[in-house]
Amino acid sequence: MAAKESKKENSGRRTPGPTNPMVTPILTDQYQFTMAYAYWKAGKHQERAVFDLYFRKNPFGGEYTVFAGLEECEGFLDYLRGIDCSDVEVYAIPEGSVVFPKVPLLRVEGPIAVVQLLETPFVNLINFASLVSTNAARHRFVAGKSKTLLEFGLRRAQGPDGGLGASKYSYIGGFDATSNVAAGMLFGIPLRGTHSHAFVISYMSLDEIKDKSLRKKDGSSTCEDFGSDSLRGYSAETNKSELAAFTSYALAFPDNFLALVDTYDVMRSGMPNFCAVALALSDLGYKAIGIRLDSGDLAYLSCEIRKLFCSIEKEFGLPGFGKMSITASNDLNEETLDALNKQGHQIDAYGIGTYLVTCYAQAALGVVFKLVEINNKPRIKLSEAVSKVTIPCKKRIYRLYGKESYALVDILTGENEPPPKVGERILCRHPFRESKRAYVVPQKIEELLRCYCAGSSDKKEEILPPLKDIRERCIQQLEEMRPDHMRRLNPTPYKVSVSAKLYDFIHSLWLNEAPVGELR
Amino acid sequence: MAAKESKKENSGRRTPGPTNPMVTPILTDQYQFTMAYAYWKAGKHQERAVFDLYFRKNPFGGEYTVFAGLEECEGFLDYLRGIDCSDVEVYAIPEGSVVFPKVPLLRVEGPIAVVQLLETPFVNLINFASLVSTNAARHRFVAGKSKTLLEFGLRRAQGPDGGLGASKYSYIGGFDATSNVAAGMLFGIPLRGTHSHAFVISYMSLDEIKDKSLRKKDGSSTCEDFGSDSLRGYSAETNKSELAAFTSYALAFPDNFLALVDTYDVMRSGMPNFCAVALALSDLGYKAIGIRLDSGDLAYLSCEIRKLFCSIEKEFGLPGFGKMSITASNDLNEETLDALNKQGHQIDAYGIGTYLVTCYAQAALGVVFKLVEINNKPRIKLSEAVSKVTIPCKKRIYRLYGKESYALVDILTGENEPPPKVGERILCRHPFRESKRAYVVPQKIEELLRCYCAGSSDKKEEILPPLKDIRERCIQQLEEMRPDHMRRLNPTPYKVSVSAKLYDFIHSLWLNEAPVGELR
Repeated sequence: MAAKESKKENSGRRTPGPTNPMVTPILTDQYQFTMAYAYWKAGKHQERAVFDLYFRKNPFGGEYTVFAGLEECEGFLDYLRGIDCSDVEVYAIPEGSVVFPKVPLLRVEGPIAVVQLLETPFVNLINFASLVSTNAARHRFVAGKSKTLLEFGLRRAQGPDGGLGASKYSYIGGFDATSNVAAGMLFGIPLRGTHSHAFVISYMSLDEIKDKSLRKKDGSSTCEDFGSDSLRGYSAETNKSELAAFTSYALAFPDNFLALVDTYDVMRSGMPNFCAVALALSDLGYKAIGIRLDSGDLAYLSCEIRKLFCSIEKEFGLPGFGKMSITASNDLNEETLDALNKQGHQIDAYGIGTYLVTCYAQAALGVVFKLVEINNKPRIKLSEAVSKVTIPCKKRIYRLYGKESYALVDILTGENEPPPKVGERILCRHPFRESKRAYVVPQKIEELLRCYCAGSSDKKEEILPPLKDIRERCIQQLEEMRPDHMRRLNPTPYKVSVSAKLYDFIHSLWLNEAPVGELR
Repeated sequence: MAAKESKKENSGRRTPGPTNPMVTPILTDQYQFTMAYAYWKAGKHQERAVFDLYFRKNPFGGEYTVFAGLEECEGFLDYLRGIDCSDVEVYAIPEGSVVFPKVPLLRVEGPIAVVQLLETPFVNLINFASLVSTNAARHRFVAGKSKTLLEFGLRRAQGPDGGLGASKYSYIGGFDATSNVAAGMLFGIPLRGTHSHAFVISYMSLDEIKDKSLRKKDGSSTCEDFGSDSLRGYSAETNKSELAAFTSYALAFPDNFLALVDTYDVMRSGMPNFCAVALALSDLGYKAIGIRLDSGDLAYLSCEIRKLFCSIEKEFGLPGFGKMSITASNDLNEETLDALNKQGHQIDAYGIGTYLVTCYAQAALGVVFKLVEINNKPRIKLSEAVSKVTIPCKKRIYRLYGKESYALVDILTGENEPPPKVGERILCRHPFRESKRAYVVPQKIEELLRCYCAGSSDKKEEILPPLKDIRERCIQQLEEMRPDHMRRLNPTPYKVSVSAKLYDFIHSLWLNEAPVGELR
């Protein structure tokens, strides 16, 4: 263990982020223990096994998935290492990568009884992480690059760390900030939040605000009665609770005044109240941030609000007033973002909650963990459903890129096959269908599986990058995909292939292992 | 604080179960902090506010919801109490109750800035807990009372404590056991689990099992070569990996032999192998438990398997062999259970994962937390959508029961109205629709909101019951509902009403608060 420790230090591996406190060795299914016992009882527990972790179908009707959750797996492994996982090797695709069905995201090797125990936590950790990251990436795709995406889902998430995970993995998938304070603290994700409807209705009148003094932005003097003398007729007919709440909020956050304007009536109360307070702030040298809408016809209202902002900019000669931020929330999802785009709108930022964090459209990714080799002997699991047949052997995975720098195809080869070479033709075969095959001449090749835990081998371990870099990788990888794989409607499936040698091997094994009377 | 502490000891309150380590004071949305600051800045933070926590629509297209998550809220509150929540009062419906839209599940009273901070964690904790409990209850309803329901969802749950919560709340909703070892340890839920397909394919032949000795159940002698001389021709044509795996598993768990029989071919390999090993166990005095099916036509296969079990019972004169347990898994949900019932089957137990724990059919319950009173003044939030209008005031809730001991209606009244009386006619009104009203003569009345945290008042606090009692309450409450509310197709909505006095009050407030030019 001591040697191992020092090796770890030398490898420069970053200590994984805050380990999820719920991830303990008992975070596993009962049958992992019963199997471990049975392996031990049979004297089989030390046999060296290789498991692949992968999924069978892309989520959300799409044709890609973002891989995430690796760091949390690492954390769990570091914990277990102290017990007896010193001989476990973990190979993984870098977190934040775009990945596809059948491709091993993780390859775990080690004594079978120990590796079996890792199945449940690894699958649990990768499943939701990759699902949320993918969901976030899809929302980003529809919203467009220029919009600000805010994750507002903590309240509707599936438990406390359902919320924490959702915040973290939404960020990886391309969101800009979260409302989740714990996620902000733990992961350094930018935080966002203003006020709720309850804040507005908790006020009755301006008299409730005990101290209305506000110092000018330049510090030159102090206005002792902020708001009441500066409302310029904008708020004569508006709701007074709301005006009081906005005034109170502006007094607390004069540099960050962003108000929720739909508690009563957006255009007749919320907007006049907001503009009155924003103008009063402007008189003291502060710039309001903007407004949030949480109900109603978001497309229409955002356009009306933009017009109002622009007319005020003109009327009062206030540069920038017209460009103030319009944030929309209220049960948004991919479909509503798409509909807003089609209608035309003036929204700058979206707050997305329930549909993002619970992955409402598809609440689980079917990540599986399958035995592919034991004692250097390949194992295959057959099934009447071809999609459930496993691809045996320890494998390498290469992503082949074409001329326009788009990814063309992933190819799985045996561990010891010569790697594909740039500019050299290689046959890529569908793993199970004989007729599906194509020659590819790659312009760039990336080997996907890297060593994250060397076990007792002397392989060099990858360094886990900080969250921001994972997010950057994700954004970049999404851009390297051909647009027809990414579109929402009828996306083209990205191809995952095997080498000719692996194809032949799979099919010889298939014939040997098929049940009596079938396929032989 | 000291006085408070001793009072707590006297109240006999059970220490809440293991507090979720992710539930910390920063488990909140950023805007709860910005609002707390703005309240403080306005000198308003100590104003006494009352918030109701409720939801607007029953999940899963059904007409009821099971309330759960209360104990975890309590745990969080106990934590906060040490900081400055000494003045917060929490009233709640007992956990495990069947509840309905608009009814406050929690009523939280205290200084507005503090209570506002409780919104996010309370909503987070109740939302998923109640959703999963309801989902579990619905699965139980379709499966029927006689079946064993096993929660197998940890791997597909939304993060580690998504899995932990799912196990706990599935148990409350009527499941019998879980595969989740952490949930078993922490909550005392019965554990279940046998082996996977990987276990089967990890074996090549019987020779791999190093020690094949098995002592007879009565201890009288030891068989040195278990299995190989007792297979009675049953396994001549079957897969040898599978036979070795079953033999190994039976050697490890001779009293708990339950085998997964579908790795190769259920009727041609899995069942003959299972029966051979079960008969060998029987020779030594052990009784096998049964089999699990994870693929194929579950209805048909379960019937064929039952026939085989019964024919062996007859042929070998083995009482009980015919009644061995048949467990089914493989992406089961309400619909597939219903379809199995319609087809006819011989399944005794269901292992249910993804669809249960992620609440796939509806991944979130829209629990909200709304301000209903501040400084003893009622507050109402209006909305163009009537379903989003809040019911103001501190309220009491009564469940009125009819002659057949079924629940008839829930009625909300003002805090200080006289309670309804058994045998006395009371007018129950729809909170918003004038024409919807009915007189009810209750035969039994249950007040639903109870005090779980007395704050600085001297009210008596309810004791949090152990998990088993919550589960019992849930099962009992579900039985007290009229069957037409519970059925899967077109259930009748259960009525939630307000008293005549509360109705009038809501509508006078509505008129006063409506935006300019509307409703007045």
